[in-house]
Amino acid sequence: MSLAERVLQGEVRAAARLMRDIDDGLRSAVDELKLLYPHTGSAYVIGITGPPGAGKSTLVDQLTAAYRKQGKRVGIVAVDPTSPFTGGAILGDRIRMNRHADDDGVFIRSLATRGHLGGISRSTGDVVNVLDAMGMEVVIIETVGVGQDEIDIVRMAHTTVVVMVPGLGDDIQAIKAGILEIGDVFVVNKADRDEADRTVRDLAVMLEMNPDKDRGWRPKVLKTEASRNRGIEELVSELEAHRQYLHSSGAINHFLEEKNASLFLDILKERLFAEVYGHIHVNGRFRAVMEGMMTRRTDPYTAVEEILAERFGIGKG
Amino acid sequence: MSLAERVLQGEVRAAARLMRDIDDGLRSAVDELKLLYPHTGSAYVIGITGPPGAGKSTLVDQLTAAYRKQGKRVGIVAVDPTSPFTGGAILGDRIRMNRHADDDGVFIRSLATRGHLGGISRSTGDVVNVLDAMGMEVVIIETVGVGQDEIDIVRMAHTTVVVMVPGLGDDIQAIKAGILEIGDVFVVNKADRDEADRTVRDLAVMLEMNPDKDRGWRPKVLKTEASRNRGIEELVSELEAHRQYLHSSGAINHFLEEKNASLFLDILKERLFAEVYGHIHVNGRFRAVMEGMMTRRTDPYTAVEEILAERFGIGKG
Repeated sequence: MSLAERVLQGEVRAAARLMRDIDDGLRSAVDELKLLYPHTGSAYVIGITGPPGAGKSTLVDQLTAAYRKQGKRVGIVAVDPTSPFTGGAILGDRIRMNRHADDDGVFIRSLATRGHLGGISRSTGDVVNVLDAMGMEVVIIETVGVGQDEIDIVRMAHTTVVVMVPGLGDDIQAIKAGILEIGDVFVVNKADRDEADRTVRDLAVMLEMNPDKDRGWRPKVLKTEASRNRGIEELVSELEAHRQYLHSSGAINHFLEEKNASLFLDILKERLFAEVYGHIHVNGRFRAVMEGMMTRRTDPYTAVEEILAERFGIGKG
Repeated sequence: MSLAERVLQGEVRAAARLMRDIDDGLRSAVDELKLLYPHTGSAYVIGITGPPGAGKSTLVDQLTAAYRKQGKRVGIVAVDPTSPFTGGAILGDRIRMNRHADDDGVFIRSLATRGHLGGISRSTGDVVNVLDAMGMEVVIIETVGVGQDEIDIVRMAHTTVVVMVPGLGDDIQAIKAGILEIGDVFVVNKADRDEADRTVRDLAVMLEMNPDKDRGWRPKVLKTEASRNRGIEELVSELEAHRQYLHSSGAINHFLEEKNASLFLDILKERLFAEVYGHIHVNGRFRAVMEGMMTRRTDPYTAVEEILAERFGIGKG
């Protein structure tokens, strides 16, 4: 039986194996992903983002418990800040998830580094598809919401939750521009802190001023204390409300168009570059360009045009 | 006279115009960049990164003043967190830079969004090359150091400064893995705060434990109060020490190899994708794939292989 068939039967070990194969860039993994693709599209994908220290992992833990109580299987993709040299991720707070470790209805995957040629959003997309195909009804993507990569990642989610903490002060100012527009639900976690109500008010005002506010869905600001399991039910209700809104308003179609285009174009970019990268290494062109650039005899813009013309017959414009 | 020739004569308006042309993706901008490329490589490039609220802009402002006192011309590229929908950047703290606004020896460029097809690190590379070619002896790249994009950006710098503030607590834990390895100099800014010495000690311990520590250069942890211009002279000395180390140790060669490879491969990726993207839009293939994905009849992995085979004769392997 192929790996894909075993994944479709919900076999956890097969899914874990396929994800490793994807990481290792095995060509066979692409064939398995092709087989899985027709069986994707059922999972409800939730993105959780926010600054470091906002308590995202604890919140994901509690959300997972809430969905498990509803009998739903939950897949989690935790995208950690990358360590470019060692490839190491921040796994400390993943340990908290241990209470789900023996639960076959929960599958957790940490993604630390982007692949050799593709971005981390590419890997995340593949992993979400595997979780979806194996029958996870809810897939949660957790990431740190600052960089463009992270924003690309949460765009794969049907519903994006932005998690803040009270009293971030300057930090809220600093990240709001990028993050206000991507949030469908806002959560002020650690809501027992003094400044919680002010942060809720500040966020509500910013959302009110947001030029994007007439888009049909008005994001709410909720309070949670994830570590004491407070506010989680309300959050689950709000997520469900947003899911229903997507379908009743027809917004789901635009969402799927964008998501499909991203997945397709990302795969195209990765494969295209992989082919050309291999080509110029094998024929010695890469080394020649590098030597030329060292002495500034070769400029990289011209070198690229020559390679595209020679290999692909692409006009030098 | 071409735009490139005017830039080479240090003409500020020509540089600003060329940067706009780059942003707009004009083909002519590439031709100008080709002309400039042989004249690049003289600038000393400093990367400044750290979390929001660490006072990076003020620090850059003071560093700029210090280099101006030495008679050096300074180019600044401020890469702000992206607002994916509005394209708006966090320009608030850029206003502080106004004291250099009338100084022809300072050129400031904010980059908010990545281009349509290329990443923000691509645009940053082009802008640094323009500043370099126009005779800026020092180029400072300021960014928020969390995402992969930002890490790619500071890798263009000869010397990378990581700015922290006292008492970040959990946050230091959360970002250290990615950021410890990229810092050549660490700065604890706002050093008048109570917890400054502890943060300095914490950072020093982390650096000591860093597996990368035997690489020849031992990063120091300095204290600054940028808003009161304290510690800036020491920082300038340390930057100079690192610059000298790069040359005396020969590490500069490895640095340049990496930097050249990144620039070349990024341009290659961007051009390649632009060509194929245009191709599949014109011939209707893109729309067909999108329609097929909606009903899951077409899987994107197979579609990509078919396009590469048809257009480029790349084997379906």
